[in-house]
Amino acid sequence: MTTSTSLDALYDPASVAVVGASDNPEKWGYWLAAGALTGRARRAVHLVNHRGGQLAGEPFRPALSALDAPPEHVVVAVPPHQVRPVVQEGLDTGARCFTVITSGTTEEDSLADLVTSRGARLLGPNCMGIVDTTSQLRLSWGDFPTGGLGLVSQSGNLALEIGRHLERAGAGFSRFVSLGNQRDIDAADALESLIAHGPTRAIAAYVEDFRDGRRLADVLAAAHAAGKPVLLLTVGRSAASGRAAASHTGALVSPHATVAAVCRDAGALLLDSAGELVDTALHLMSPTPSLVRSRPHPHRHETPSAPPPDHPSAAPPPPHRIAVIGDSGGQGALAADSFAACGFDVPALSPDTIDALSTHLPPSAGRANPVDLAGAGERDLAAYARVAATLLHSGDADTVVLTGYFGDYATANPAQAGRECEIAHALADAAGAAGRALLVHTMARDTPALAVLRERGVPVHERVEQAATALAGAVRLTSAAPRLPQERTAPPAAYEVEDGGYERVRDLLASYGVAFPTAEFVTDADAAVEAAYRTGYPLVLKAMGLAHKTEAGGVALHIADEVALRTAFARMREATGAARYAVEAMATPPYARELIVGVRKDAAFGPVVMVGAGGVTAELHADTALALAPLTPARARALLLELRHAPLLTGWRGAPAVHLEAAVTAVCAVAQAAADHPELTDLEVNPLLVHPGGAIALDAHAVVATGSPCGD
Amino acid sequence: MTTSTSLDALYDPASVAVVGASDNPEKWGYWLAAGALTGRARRAVHLVNHRGGQLAGEPFRPALSALDAPPEHVVVAVPPHQVRPVVQEGLDTGARCFTVITSGTTEEDSLADLVTSRGARLLGPNCMGIVDTTSQLRLSWGDFPTGGLGLVSQSGNLALEIGRHLERAGAGFSRFVSLGNQRDIDAADALESLIAHGPTRAIAAYVEDFRDGRRLADVLAAAHAAGKPVLLLTVGRSAASGRAAASHTGALVSPHATVAAVCRDAGALLLDSAGELVDTALHLMSPTPSLVRSRPHPHRHETPSAPPPDHPSAAPPPPHRIAVIGDSGGQGALAADSFAACGFDVPALSPDTIDALSTHLPPSAGRANPVDLAGAGERDLAAYARVAATLLHSGDADTVVLTGYFGDYATANPAQAGRECEIAHALADAAGAAGRALLVHTMARDTPALAVLRERGVPVHERVEQAATALAGAVRLTSAAPRLPQERTAPPAAYEVEDGGYERVRDLLASYGVAFPTAEFVTDADAAVEAAYRTGYPLVLKAMGLAHKTEAGGVALHIADEVALRTAFARMREATGAARYAVEAMATPPYARELIVGVRKDAAFGPVVMVGAGGVTAELHADTALALAPLTPARARALLLELRHAPLLTGWRGAPAVHLEAAVTAVCAVAQAAADHPELTDLEVNPLLVHPGGAIALDAHAVVATGSPCGD
Repeated sequence: MTTSTSLDALYDPASVAVVGASDNPEKWGYWLAAGALTGRARRAVHLVNHRGGQLAGEPFRPALSALDAPPEHVVVAVPPHQVRPVVQEGLDTGARCFTVITSGTTEEDSLADLVTSRGARLLGPNCMGIVDTTSQLRLSWGDFPTGGLGLVSQSGNLALEIGRHLERAGAGFSRFVSLGNQRDIDAADALESLIAHGPTRAIAAYVEDFRDGRRLADVLAAAHAAGKPVLLLTVGRSAASGRAAASHTGALVSPHATVAAVCRDAGALLLDSAGELVDTALHLMSPTPSLVRSRPHPHRHETPSAPPPDHPSAAPPPPHRIAVIGDSGGQGALAADSFAACGFDVPALSPDTIDALSTHLPPSAGRANPVDLAGAGERDLAAYARVAATLLHSGDADTVVLTGYFGDYATANPAQAGRECEIAHALADAAGAAGRALLVHTMARDTPALAVLRERGVPVHERVEQAATALAGAVRLTSAAPRLPQERTAPPAAYEVEDGGYERVRDLLASYGVAFPTAEFVTDADAAVEAAYRTGYPLVLKAMGLAHKTEAGGVALHIADEVALRTAFARMREATGAARYAVEAMATPPYARELIVGVRKDAAFGPVVMVGAGGVTAELHADTALALAPLTPARARALLLELRHAPLLTGWRGAPAVHLEAAVTAVCAVAQAAADHPELTDLEVNPLLVHPGGAIALDAHAVVATGSPCGD
Repeated sequence: MTTSTSLDALYDPASVAVVGASDNPEKWGYWLAAGALTGRARRAVHLVNHRGGQLAGEPFRPALSALDAPPEHVVVAVPPHQVRPVVQEGLDTGARCFTVITSGTTEEDSLADLVTSRGARLLGPNCMGIVDTTSQLRLSWGDFPTGGLGLVSQSGNLALEIGRHLERAGAGFSRFVSLGNQRDIDAADALESLIAHGPTRAIAAYVEDFRDGRRLADVLAAAHAAGKPVLLLTVGRSAASGRAAASHTGALVSPHATVAAVCRDAGALLLDSAGELVDTALHLMSPTPSLVRSRPHPHRHETPSAPPPDHPSAAPPPPHRIAVIGDSGGQGALAADSFAACGFDVPALSPDTIDALSTHLPPSAGRANPVDLAGAGERDLAAYARVAATLLHSGDADTVVLTGYFGDYATANPAQAGRECEIAHALADAAGAAGRALLVHTMARDTPALAVLRERGVPVHERVEQAATALAGAVRLTSAAPRLPQERTAPPAAYEVEDGGYERVRDLLASYGVAFPTAEFVTDADAAVEAAYRTGYPLVLKAMGLAHKTEAGGVALHIADEVALRTAFARMREATGAARYAVEAMATPPYARELIVGVRKDAAFGPVVMVGAGGVTAELHADTALALAPLTPARARALLLELRHAPLLTGWRGAPAVHLEAAVTAVCAVAQAAADHPELTDLEVNPLLVHPGGAIALDAHAVVATGSPCGD
């Protein structure tokens, strides 16, 4: 879907034509025409309807071909069968892009081919249009308040809902692109165009169909690199993961978990609702410098934001510190709890800060964190600004939270409105002067003081838990270090893996450096005994070619001598009828832990690696970490250390640490093998036994694209 | 604090006096006086200020003694030093209750004694007053909208915030009691009085200080039994748990976790914020019958709400089923995800339902769940009511969720307002006729159609995730079966445990039926060898009287014979210098799992039992369940089955189940021992080894109230 054609004609055309214009306020053609006319000062606007008529003094012309000058951008809202003729006519008159609102058109792909073959671009069909508030382009239904959020959406109604939340928060859109059926311009195209768009301070996207997921991931990473935060919504959070029968990996990795891993590694933030998205966007769009970027902490050791790539266990950055100011002990304490629950530090204040606060507070006020104003604000509104300024400049906190009543004084006593607005300005001034973030949770709504705060870029929330969640997301996003896999430069493997059985997969993974126990593959008992001289006892006998070999009696452990081996072989052949058997040394290193390493091919994002706590309790613990394949060693190490069970790997209660680097090497090898072999839809080692001396794979299997699962 | 005096004079006095009345709208005395006057039609209202004056034609009298008739309820808002003289004067004139707003009074306890010794009651001091909207009693600052929520709060500002959220949702208060310093009337008293208060449909409480926690728990259970749901807020969610040094139990059980367990077992709902509380209350106050009580599912086996008390593993009730109607695919899908994330079932619709929907929907509309209206509502608003009615009557869902645009049609086209209100009524009618719950998430705010829905008791939410969380809380609360421990009828133990060491605690727990390995306690090596003849090898040698005996070299496992025993004894005496040693049989039953069972004495709630995944990874997994001691076997069983690790107990991947009833017996015994011995602040068995043949305690210790921890 990528072409090099500029999208300028989409966002800021020199001229626009609405085909299907109407003067009936219940019709789409009315809203598109009326919206287009709001840009008349900037561009030529043509309205087309073969039946004639007019809107706001602008006559409807009979056809695109009847216009004096060709329109750059044509919006099409005509019945389905008329779409293609209108587009053809537009191309013939020289139009450079088309926004097709109409749904139910047929042969959409050939329509897109027609448009792009002429060097033009197509948005839709079946989209809700496009809005660019910075170029006075309004070609959609509904109200889109002006502001700094660029939105790309596959749902029109969701865009309207986001608009309502933004408007109530005193914010709005820079651009809105409704994707519709994405026949030419897709989510990645639209997101990419927002990166370079100056007035767009933050980017939001609702995407159901990720198409070329790797390209989308690259665009997300590019946005992060350009300092444009991206907030993503998608569906399928509750969908069961698929292909449970094929592998443990399939049971543990859902498409939604894959999107979550991609967002984390691309430096985007995956959220769950329109409201959450807007809450978070408020923090990211705020003009206050370093609103969420934590400055060095004067009292603490500062960890650099990008850990050295090969440091085995880079410490996480210190938590963002919050100071809470409450009008009452209850609201302050609940706010502190909400922020702490989101991972923030709510530290004790330094003695200097407590001294400084004392000059602004009555003796009964709490000077811990939360600070309890204890009526100081009621006696003198300036106390809010003085206490906030003290905390903003204290060095004790990265963000100051004001919770409770402020913003509502003028409601009970309108004479206080002017003074309350002054204090709102003083609060914003204090944040700006300190270069720290301030946010307000208030029981008020739509009061003059809140309007001041919003205008000055201070996020205001009606619920304290929303404030905490939003700040947490904004901090996470701005402190994220994108770490997508680099493009592979090597060509894919020269051969295809033709079956997913242990013998074949073991060879494949061994060629990538994964260690397995010594093994030989035999077809009869005598050969097994002969092999045992070389592998040594105790050993493991496995039947090959079975889907569930343990349950079928196809595995015998702890075989101590030749007699036991011959007995086990006879019993296993009887039970399974297998043609081939593995005679394998039995690995029982002390202090070993079991991991699972799997790769699952996602339809949009390609191979996704999962590492997790392995063995028979893998699904009970569901302790996994995901990333796109292939992996660097640093990335593999970070995934392992992200597990809840990580303390068991690094030395727990006196047990020695396992050989983490051996585990890292094995994880990278599995990931690379899967990336090199697109014919493998699943590739899994379970368990990977890691111990103080190394890492060894005790079982492995794969699923090949054309076949059914063949575990053994 | 309990007395048998009725609180009628508090909530609906025949006469009220405000001492410290003022005509200055910036003073508390003004708000109290003006509020009191709103009840003039129902009761005599006296305003008292020794400086004279008047408000709204009501003259200020110089003193209580100057009134013609004695006031039943006296509100006191005078400087601190005048509080006691005013109260004394009130008592002398025959007042039956006092609400003291003033903060900073001294000798509050003696003031309370003075009041209660005369048979009167005291609210406060340092409270924000009292409001009963059902008896026109308004003795507080701020606006309190009228409605069905009874609120008891230790924070006045939080009450104001709750009031704002209620008002925006078209709801309000039946009563508000500000507790202040709780010198007489406490949270339990105020909550108890709300149970019998007819107009109170749901109860909310914000409590920081739980005082007699067991009594409060009983009041919560009584409220549940009376069908009055209680929603609780408290602080300390983020506080670190205490007494980590004393025991694992101390490290794993925080006061907040204790409150959470009490709420669950008393049938109350613990929430985190004012907004969440109001969201949930909306569902609980709705007049629609069986709004949240799930009716029998026609297509499913119905589990009775109270499981038989001794059934080993009563299946949880089937999940509440949700049907979602969206204006767009995106909003519908996000709503379905939000509800599924809260534990709801969003099932496929039955073929009959799909057929019935087809008559109301265009061909392009989605008939799965979520149902996508695909513009049907825009063409005819009645489609909303028809589709909702179909789903409400279908038997496929317990609650129908309408998400998206409804409520906002009149915003773009005011001519639609009347029609939209009609449809709102039709939606409420459909829910009432079906006896099912309906809730609405909408991007609109404060429109006529939403007012209709709210008036009709249909909860309306601005954010879909709030709708899901609120319904989940309401369903959990109304389907909860309270299961607090019954009062102990037996007297406490006749003796006190004087030390918390293994030897003593082992004796104590053995007397309650807890099994331990055979052991003898010796002081020298010869005696150890002699004891070993009786216990048998392999055995364990432990040094007594050490705080951290493993780290100090005070434990030797797997001792196989006399030589090894003598060697171990000599080494251990050298390392620890201990005076006494345990010679103990070593238990190594197959398929064993380690549990931890601990009891911690909470300052407010008394002994709290914790069961958890035990052994050295106990703190890593932090997989615990809590309840007040003592426990019935059914309750102990439920706690064990609530653990994430429960599948390991009931048979996992072919391993046999452990002897759950033996574990239950041991847990109950530990709980009862702690309940009988209030001198024990901690009592812990770790690990309790449970296996297919039974349960055996491998170590135990206690902390006694007066001493320091003495583990060994």
